This record gives sequence, C-alpha cells and structure tokens, in this order.
Amino acid sequence: MSFNTFGHLFRVTTWGESHGPGLGATVDGCPPGVPLTESDVQVWLDKRKPGQNKYTTQRREADEVEILSGVFEGVTTGTPIQLAIRNTDQRSKDYGDIAEKFRPGHADITYWQKYGIRDYRGGGRSSARETAARVAAGGVARAALAQLVPAASITGYMVQMGPHQIDRTRVDFNQIDQNPFWTPDAIAAEEWAAILDSLRKSGNSVGAIIEVTASGFPAGLGAPVYGKLDTDLAAAMMSINAVKGVEIGEGMAAASLTGTDNADEISMGPNGPQYNSNHAGGILGGISTGQDIVVRFAVKPTSSILNPRKTITKSGEASEIITKGRHDPCVGIRAVPVAEAMAACVLLDHLLLDRGQTGGVRGPIG
Amino acid sequence: MSFNTFGHLFRVTTWGESHGPGLGATVDGCPPGVPLTESDVQVWLDKRKPGQNKYTTQRREADEVEILSGVFEGVTTGTPIQLAIRNTDQRSKDYGDIAEKFRPGHADITYWQKYGIRDYRGGGRSSARETAARVAAGGVARAALAQLVPAASITGYMVQMGPHQIDRTRVDFNQIDQNPFWTPDAIAAEEWAAILDSLRKSGNSVGAIIEVTASGFPAGLGAPVYGKLDTDLAAAMMSINAVKGVEIGEGMAAASLTGTDNADEISMGPNGPQYNSNHAGGILGGISTGQDIVVRFAVKPTSSILNPRKTITKSGEASEIITKGRHDPCVGIRAVPVAEAMAACVLLDHLLLDRGQTGGVRGPIG
Amino acid sequence: MSFNTFGHLFRVTTWGESHGPGLGATVDGCPPGVPLTESDVQVWLDKRKPGQNKYTTQRREADEVEILSGVFEGVTTGTPIQLAIRNTDQRSKDYGDIAEKFRPGHADITYWQKYGIRDYRGGGRSSARETAARVAAGGVARAALAQLVPAASITGYMVQMGPHQIDRTRVDFNQIDQNPFWTPDAIAAEEWAAILDSLRKSGNSVGAIIEVTASGFPAGLGAPVYGKLDTDLAAAMMSINAVKGVEIGEGMAAASLTGTDNADEISMGPNGPQYNSNHAGGILGGISTGQDIVVRFAVKPTSSILNPRKTITKSGEASEIITKGRHDPCVGIRAVPVAEAMAACVLLDHLLLDRGQTGGVRGPIG
Amino acid sequence: MSFNTFGHLFRVTTWGESHGPGLGATVDGCPPGVPLTESDVQVWLDKRKPGQNKYTTQRREADEVEILSGVFEGVTTGTPIQLAIRNTDQRSKDYGDIAEKFRPGHADITYWQKYGIRDYRGGGRSSARETAARVAAGGVARAALAQLVPAASITGYMVQMGPHQIDRTRVDFNQIDQNPFWTPDAIAAEEWAAILDSLRKSGNSVGAIIEVTASGFPAGLGAPVYGKLDTDLAAAMMSINAVKGVEIGEGMAAASLTGTDNADEISMGPNGPQYNSNHAGGILGGISTGQDIVVRFAVKPTSSILNPRKTITKSGEASEIITKGRHDPCVGIRAVPVAEAMAACVLLDHLLLDRGQTGGVRGPIG
Repeated sequence: MSFNTFGHLFRVTTWGESHGPGLGATVDGCPPGVPLTESDVQVWLDKRKPGQNKYTTQRREADEVEILSGVFEGVTTGTPIQLAIRNTDQRSKDYGDIAEKFRPGHADITYWQKYGIRDYRGGGRSSARETAARVAAGGVARAALAQLVPAASITGYMVQMGPHQIDRTRVDFNQIDQNPFWTPDAIAAEEWAAILDSLRKSGNSVGAIIEVTASGFPAGLGAPVYGKLDTDLAAAMMSINAVKGVEIGEGMAAASLTGTDNADEISMGPNGPQYNSNHAGGILGGISTGQDIVVRFAVKPTSSILNPRKTITKSGEASEIITKGRHDPCVGIRAVPVAEAMAACVLLDHLLLDRGQTGGVRGPIG
Repeated sequence: MSFNTFGHLFRVTTWGESHGPGLGATVDGCPPGVPLTESDVQVWLDKRKPGQNKYTTQRREADEVEILSGVFEGVTTGTPIQLAIRNTDQRSKDYGDIAEKFRPGHADITYWQKYGIRDYRGGGRSSARETAARVAAGGVARAALAQLVPAASITGYMVQMGPHQIDRTRVDFNQIDQNPFWTPDAIAAEEWAAILDSLRKSGNSVGAIIEVTASGFPAGLGAPVYGKLDTDLAAAMMSINAVKGVEIGEGMAAASLTGTDNADEISMGPNGPQYNSNHAGGILGGISTGQDIVVRFAVKPTSSILNPRKTITKSGEASEIITKGRHDPCVGIRAVPVAEAMAACVLLDHLLLDRGQTGGVRGPIG
Repeated sequence: MSFNTFGHLFRVTTWGESHGPGLGATVDGCPPGVPLTESDVQVWLDKRKPGQNKYTTQRREADEVEILSGVFEGVTTGTPIQLAIRNTDQRSKDYGDIAEKFRPGHADITYWQKYGIRDYRGGGRSSARETAARVAAGGVARAALAQLVPAASITGYMVQMGPHQIDRTRVDFNQIDQNPFWTPDAIAAEEWAAILDSLRKSGNSVGAIIEVTASGFPAGLGAPVYGKLDTDLAAAMMSINAVKGVEIGEGMAAASLTGTDNADEISMGPNGPQYNSNHAGGILGGISTGQDIVVRFAVKPTSSILNPRKTITKSGEASEIITKGRHDPCVGIRAVPVAEAMAACVLLDHLLLDRGQTGGVRGPIG
Repeated sequence: MSFNTFGHLFRVTTWGESHGPGLGATVDGCPPGVPLTESDVQVWLDKRKPGQNKYTTQRREADEVEILSGVFEGVTTGTPIQLAIRNTDQRSKDYGDIAEKFRPGHADITYWQKYGIRDYRGGGRSSARETAARVAAGGVARAALAQLVPAASITGYMVQMGPHQIDRTRVDFNQIDQNPFWTPDAIAAEEWAAILDSLRKSGNSVGAIIEVTASGFPAGLGAPVYGKLDTDLAAAMMSINAVKGVEIGEGMAAASLTGTDNADEISMGPNGPQYNSNHAGGILGGISTGQDIVVRFAVKPTSSILNPRKTITKSGEASEIITKGRHDPCVGIRAVPVAEAMAACVLLDHLLLDRGQTGGVRGPIG
C-alpha cells in the first residue's frame, strides 16, 4: 500500500477528484483469460451510485465506466486494465466559503497543511466519490474470483445505524437488496428509515457499522506476519473514507472473552475440518481457516452538515461554517458496495499470492 | 507490507521462531547519523521481556540484542541494521501432543493447511515471541524519532482487561510504569490483579484492550488514499498476534455519533490550529492534524489454556487438547511495548515519506 | 518495479495498447506545488511522435495528452496525475496473418505462451506505442525536476546507427535537434541518412545505440545495494522495448581497462570535489558523484520487416511471415525521447528517496 | 528493489559490512517444503570464498553460513530464512589513510557525501564481501528451483579478461571448474594466468566480462512492461559491485545488426517451438521463450591498487593514495558465483510471480 496503490500482485491504483474531469482505477496483475465486459463492472457501480433514494446525496452521476485497456475479445489479457469514469454532474457553484475555511472533521485542513494546495471543489481527492474507482476495481476482482473460486461469495450489509443495531436473530441475507440500507434485518430497516428522515431534515448526519461476510474461500490465504489476511483486510477497510475502526470476527469484543469462550473448537466434517463457532472470523494467525471470513467497520458521520460549526480560515481567523450541498445523512449506506469491493480485491490478491508462493499445494488433514 | 516486511522507507523485516536458534529484525532505510547502541534497544526489550511478574509467561529469556550491522562509531550509517536475539530458554520437552493436534483458536491448523509443514515447537513463527523482534526494531525507530522530532512521545497502556475498563477520570500517565498491567488507572490495576490471579489459577485466559497515544507529531503525516496514516497504523496493530480489532480516535463508537457531535471544532491557538476535542484521534483524511494520535486495539485471550478443548489430529481424528506450558493469562499485557514499537515504526516511516514527497514544506495557516 | 509500475516514491504505472481506445500513465507521488499544464507534457510527446520524417513509422497519431487528475489551478496537488492519450489512427486492416502467426524476434509468441491470449492488433501492449505513456510521465518528472534542481539537464542522443558510430570529436549538443537522428554529430547524420534510406527501401531495419547525459545533479543520489542509481537506470532502460544492453560510463569497455586507467582521480574544485575523467559515468558504489551521469543502451533492429522470415502458426504449422504496415526502419530514433523520460523519472525518484532517508544533509568535504 | 531488498515474491534483504561482526541475507517468500541444509548453501559460498588461489584476495574467511530460521526438520517452512555469516578475518590494521582519504574509483567519497558517515574498514557496506550474502541467498533459490524445475541449470563463466576474449569455438562447459577463472576455454585460461600474474605483481588490476546461461526454464517467465525478465536480470547484475554494463543475448552488438539478421526464425520441434538461433538471449518482449537465457556483464577493474593515485582528504586537501591490503587483481573472477546466485534469485522470483498471476496455464502451440 503506497500512496494510491493497493495490493501486492493484484494491484489497484485509483486516481481522480470529485469535480475534475473524471476518476478511475488502473488495475494491474489481473489473471489473463477472465471474461470481462463493461457491464460486469457497471452493475457494481450502479449499486453504489448516489441519488438512488432520499438517504444518499442527490448528486446525479451516471458513473458510466469505460474500459480503456487490458481486455481483448471479451477477456482480460493480463495487462493493465484502465477503468475510467467521467464526472458529469459537477454543478457550478460558488466554492468561496469552502475554499477559504476548513470544515471541522474533514480532510480540508490536513490536505492544506500537507500539500500547501488542495482541490477544494467537492473535497477533491478526499471526496467519497473516490470510492467509485474502488467499486470499479472490485468488479474486476469479482470477475476473476468467479473463475478461480466459483462457489465463493462476498456480501456486505449494514448492521448498525447510529446507536441502533440490528437484531441478529432476524438476519436474512435475502432482505439486503430489499431496503435502502442494505441491511439483512427488515424490521431495523423500517425503524432506521424514520430515524434517518428526521436527522436528514435537521441537517445532521449519523455513523454506521458495516459488515462483510466472505464465504467459500479456501483455507490457507494470508501470510505471516505482516502480510496477514486480516492485516490487509484491516488496511483495506481503514483506507475507506470516514472509517474509524475495523474488526475481524469478535473484534473489540474479543477483549471481554476468556480463552475458553473464545477458541473455536474443531471437529472433522465431511469436507475437512469444521468449527463449532466462528469467534475468529475465519482467520487464525493471519491465515484463512475456510470458515466465513467476517470483517466489520465503523463509518463516522459525515462532517458536511447544515449545523454551523466553529472553524478558522486559511488566514487563521475564527469563523463558522455550514456545509450546504448534496451530502449523505448516513454515508455508511454507500460504504456497503465499497466494502465488498475492497474485500474482493484483498481476497483475490491473497489467492494469487498464495498460489505464487505455495502453488496451492497444502497440508492435508485426515 | 509483504509477508514479513513492514514499512515503505523505514522497512522492518522480522525473522525467527520461538524455539529455533534465534530471531531478529533487519531494519532498512534508517536515517544515517542517529546515535544508537545496543542499550538503546535493550531498554525496550527489557520492558517486553517475559517472566517479570506472575501475569506473564514464566519462560525466562535474556532477550539480549546484538547489533550485527549498520552502526559504526556509535551512529547509524544508513545501511541495514541487523538486530539479532538468540533464544536461550527453549526448554526441552515432548511436543508430541502439539505436533499432532491443532490447538483451537491457534494458528496451528492454518499454518499446516497453508504450508504443509509447521514448526510446532512453541508455535514456531506464530509465537508471540516474534514480537521481540518488533520491539527491537521499534527501539531503532525511537532513536531516529528522538533526533527528528525530539519533543514527540509514544505511550502505550492498557485500558481494558476482560470486560473491565479503566475509569478515564482516573488516568495518570505516571502510573503506567507502577503496575504490572501498564495501566494509567492505579485502582483498576489493583482490581485487575485479583481478577487475573483467579483466572490464572483456573487455567483460563482473558483478552484486553491497549491504547497508544503519540504526542508532539506534526500535521501532514500520511497520504491519501491507501497510504493513510490510520491505514498503516491499523495494519501495524492488526499484524500483532491475537489482535482482532483496531480503532482510531472514537473508533467503533463513531458509528453512534451524529455529525454535530463528532466533528472537532477548530480554533486558532498560539502555535497554529487547535481543536476543542479529539474524536478524530489526530487524523483527518488519513493525514495527521498535529493533535494526539490515538490508536486502540483488542487482543483476544490466549488460546493456550489448561482447560481441555475439542479438536482433531493431523489424521483427522477427534481428540481433546490441553495446552500445558508457560503461557500468559493475559497476553495483552506484553502487547503494550509491542504496540509502542509498531507505532514508532509507522510514524518514522511516514515522517520520511512525507519529507520525501513534500520536503516538509507545508501550507501555512495564519 | 512490478509488472506495469515503475519507481519507488515517484511511481509511474503505464496502461494501454497500440490499437485499443488509448493509453496513458498514472503518476503517483509527484511533489505538490509543481506548475504543470498539458503543454508541459505535450512538448515531449511531440518530440517522440511518429510520422515526423521518413525514418519513423508513417502512422499519424496526434498523441494529444489530457490531464485527468492531480492538477488544480495549474499546479500539482500531490495526488495521482492521470495522463491519457486517445488512439486515433488505428487504421482498419486485416490482422489475420499476424493473429495466427508469430513474428520472429517479436513478443507475439511469448505473450501467447504466457497469457494464452494476446491483443495482436499492432502488437497490443508490446507495441512501441506504449512508450508514449513513458514520455508523458517523463514530462511530469521534468517539471518537478525543474523546481527541485533548476540547473539540471537531461539530454538524449544517438551515438551509433547499425555499426556506424559517431566521431566523439565532432560532438556538438546544439546539433541534436537539427537532424532526424537526434545525433550530436552533424556529419554522421548525413551519412546515416543515406544508409537508412537504402535500408528502408530494401524493407530491412537496423539497430542503434542511444546515450543520455544528465548534468547538474547533486552527489548522493542512489542507495546501496539494490537501490543503486545505476541499478535503477539499467532497469529503466532495459524495460524499453527492444533494448538488449545497458552501459554506465565506460560500460562493457570497462572490462578492458586496468585499475590505473579506470579510476577517475579526484581533486578539489571551487564547488567541491572534481574529477579528471569520468570513466565511472558519474556513479560510484551506486551513488551519484555530482559528475555527469552517463547511461547508454542498444536498441535491436525492428523485427517487423518486409523480408519473409520462417515461423510457425498457433497450430504449430511451418509458415513464413512478412510484416507489412507502417514500421520504423530504425526504431532507435524514437527511443531518444523515451530514454530521456525514463532518466528523468529515475532521477526524480532518487531525489525524493534521498530526501526521505537522509533529509538531503550530506557529508561536507573541505 | 528498494535499498537493500531485492525481488518481488522471493525477496532477499542483505545486511552487513566487511569488517563488522558479520553479514547475511534475510530470505522471505521461499516456497515451503524445499529440502534445505546449511551444506546446500555452503557449497556455493565455498565456490566464491576468497583466498583459494593467487588471483583472489588473500583474506581468509571461513564464510560459514548458519541458518537461523525458516527451516524445520530439514525443509523450508515458508517463513523467513535468516542466513548469517560471521566475519572472522578482520585483520587489525591502521585504517588512518583510508579513513581520511577517498580512493579514486571507489564508493568512499559517495558514501561520505550521501550519509555523512561511512564504515571505512574494508569498504564497509560497499565491500565485495557483501556478495557473500547474495551467494548464500542464491543457494536457497537453487534449492527451490531444483524442486520446481529439476531439469534447469544456471551456469556462470568468464568470457573476457581485460581485452582478452575467449574463443567461442573452444567453449566446453566441463572446463569451467578446471581453472581459476571459471572459463570454459582452457587455452584462454592458460594465457590469462600469465597475463594476470604480471598485472598482480605490478600492483595493478583488470576488468572482466562474465556470462550466465540459464537452461531448461519454461517459456512465459517475465511480465511487461517494467517487470520484464530482462529488466530484472539487468537490475540484478548491475547491482553487483563494480558492474558497469549488462547485456542480454546479442547485447550492445544488437545495434549493429539488421532486422533480417537479428530475428531468430521459429520452427516446430518435438517439444514445442524451437529457434534457429538465439540472438534474443532467450527473452522476447521481456518474457522467456524457453531457449537458453543468456545474460552478460562487465566488471570494472578494482580501484584498490598499489599504484599511487591523486585524490583529496575529507578536509579537501590534495593528496595521493595507495591501497595496500589484500585485494583481487581481477575481481571479476569472484563475480562468477555471485552472478549465478543473482540469476537463480531472479528466475525463482519470476517463476513464483508467473504462477501467481497466470497459474502456469499457458497458451498451447500445435
């Protein structure tokens, strides 16, 4: 992970700003021979696309991806895949206030302090719009995974909005696509709708917790001690805008458990080892166990809100700022497809890394 | 981060196993001219060293570090620094049980499945003993930081043992060295002692939460979007054995806040911008603000416990396992100096990266 | 250097194929605050552009670069710079022959064997057209160098065409732009013109040797032992299409010298150390001395020629092939701006690396 | 390649100085399950060891390697392999002259200028002694190659000493081990012996050209455009001390050829494609063809000679220097096993990379 590149063998470099000509991802290291069309990528971009309901920014971007390289006669060639998305809805506006003042809780001030220049239009590079490029790259990763581990699946969903958690007994993955929150708890979805309506009207915002479950991946992915699968998943999720915490399996709650409670007992199943629980989130010693891989992260509430907040100007004078514009009252909602994309990239990368080092030949059990 | 190397410009590669000849760290990219002796490193190793009280493993290792390269006439030369530690207390024992069975909650099974071979003596490469090499590397990073940012400090401490949290109103950093838990809450230390005694006697173990505060670092460290300071801190902490969750600032709790509550308001102080709170943990948009950098992580309870747990053998037969030996009832205690070391390495690396790209010339405010 | 990315801190990833929608370079790690417009890049692309005289391919490409990100209000922001070039002259033709047969001396067969698929249109990714992206990236590097080391210059030129070498006593850098060969020897240029005319008419091609001199760079760039300045220069040049040999200073001829002849004696000049010769090519122990940095490389003759050559088809049948189309009789000519671009990227990268590790504070002499 | 680490998936970090406690290599990413003992590595170190005849430095080093990690029960575990060599013959001497003056043609001055400090004892990090660590790492690479491509071989040999080339018609690989020059031309060996005796007595030194042939490797290794096999081989060889030029196949001579002469015609053999010549040196478009891979490089004459040379002191005063001590009159001799080791590391790395990205499934021909 260096600056704007992510991954070891399957490497994604994203580029672009919110209100410049466009953005995209340069994907290097994809296996050759993977069937890939623009619609394979577009389907995931459409899922992330803003403006689909009243809980996401009303900016309307077509987010149409163009594949500029790396695909020939419908399959990947093994050379870099350039995924480009033109910006189309950069509404002309007066940026005067944002250009001169720093929004509290936003990257405005740190970009300025680091670089001495920042593209203040819509947040520039620090805009959540950058995540469209991740989703596009994730579409490529998913296409490759479909070929390498056809039975595998990667599913993201929201498990908490503000302080309101889902009820785990009501989880039904079929519900995820049926509500604007991508939550598997249909009743929570209804409750959250009312709460978010109220917050949105008050010009405020709220955080959320997203979870991703990756099923059907083999044991053996990940490598000690700095190339652990959970290390790379944590980095991938923490790199998403506004994320402040990442958990694997039990996560922070693991601190409260005893060794007896926490260790997942092992037995022999028809297809190899199986576990009587999954506190580990499918990863032991940084290496996948073959169980579901479970990663979770918290998204802070958008700092772009209508309530006036105290701040300073570039010249150091005390001021106040209100962020008008078209923002997400719960930006966590749109983080769901982003999280899936990052998980897909990490898992594909580790499949290739493992195949490179070990050849995929593993220690048999039983 | 690739397999066993960590960092971009300040790069640490650790090597070695628990019960082999030794272990160590190869440190590349250290600035030249940094005063460094073995005792500068040894002091941190001594802090981590096991067997110092009844709450850590009774294995007795001198953990004496030898600097084999990269230092001449008492200062670093800018070439690789090899830090080697010989293992001395590899008590001879019968490993038969551990060699044939997989400890639940341990990396035994995943190493086997990935590599088809594992050094089962004391956990081999997956042993917490690997962290001694990190602490040694952290000693080098601290020496370089002392030269580059003399006023900076990095302080780790325990904030939760099992479900028992400290009382934030009682925090006194002067207390940290006064108790075996490295906790800044003296009263919690007393309470935890009683609890852990009881757990230890029952052959069980418990998790913990560690926090690290880095003070005195300049604004501008970290880079969007995959080289964020919090991304690298998250990866660094998640790479430590047994860590299951990582938080920056508010962490997972950020999900529950509103935008109004979460955004740290900015005012102008005598030395530049200052903030009326630090929900962000000193990082906005992946770049340091100049506030305290706060990172926190959960360590799961050791899976090496005396209570029998169901497992399988290499041949797939159902079995039970008890892990005798000299294990930590709360391995989180020894994670404190490890966390400090990882934070030191990440912060130095980002200081060098920032100096490389921007020359340290930054946007003035006021 | 990993697949399609080049550089450590200043990183260039090129993408695109000869006859796809376009190609370009994703440039990451550029210092912020560097003045940059499309015309700063275009000027170098125009130098490389084909079809400017009868000695280069008659393909006509506008090679117009568009900066899609990373520049705001005329200066770089420190975030990724996407340089995109649309292909415009992909003349429709029947690729049947090239699609089924492998051109001897060309990457056709190895791409097929490695990937099981290749974009045969115009050579796809293996086309010399890829070098346009390098030249674009080099334009960015030059802009940054102009700010960091304003007195420095990087000059490429041809010193040999086929077996015909320039006369070093006639070298005049002012001549380089005055002839189609970018050679500093005006008389050689005239002789080569006649020779190449004849070769071109006979449907044949010829190799060349290119030299690059970088002047005005400080001592101290490069790092032992695998990050040597000459290591990275060698890799950069060898990565250019059709290059088969790379030399620093005396190059291969160093083998024939004695130690007495080869070592450049040192004396003290008004601005520091100076040398009575430059056999070393400005690099000792992988680190720049402050003298002119001299790198040289050989380009093999294009394998795309009109003379029939024996080959096989994809199905393994014996065949012959003639490469019609618009090819360069001496592809080395267009390698000159490419070499300058690669040198610029490497030198900027090492300036940033050196600043990162050492802060640019160096050992004084005198 | 970053500072002291070499390779992508099979990564070697060397450390250590000529006259410090020792040196070695940290090898990461080795496949698991490779049989490896210290004697598998020692055999190559013994080949490189100084003092074996009168043409190499009379320093006597046992160069005994110790494997400190990464091997268990006689096979590699897939975790880092630490190869350590203690220095034993650091003859105590007065370094005063070398400490204060810079040897012309040596890295003395550039290390000083870059770092502001240098370990002047025996050249410190810039000593040819560093190459012992490369040879050790190469021993590990060879062990892994023996398992992955058992029929492959890597053979280095000297083809030129000073201006004296071998006669290619006399080449007999069986002769390589029969003379102190590792040359396949027995008659050349005799002639060179006389010449080098004379040079040695006069206190002078001479350069050499080394060639490495790697046979039996599959087609498909290497990746466009910056991860080319020849790019990495060139970098690997150029990183060896004193190397000033690198060639693949025809090398610099390719410039003099026409396209008709240079392109290796292809026909169908019993085991796939075969070529009627090997001007390409086994690499087309950066990817191996399956032919012999041929790389060649020039080593400059040692700058440590007895003839007095003009130089300056650290304080900038004019002076002269004579390098007494135990130096190689033709350091190229000992570069032979080093070159083999570097080739082995590069080829293994590319085998793993290729397996990672493509799975080793390739385009069939015929």
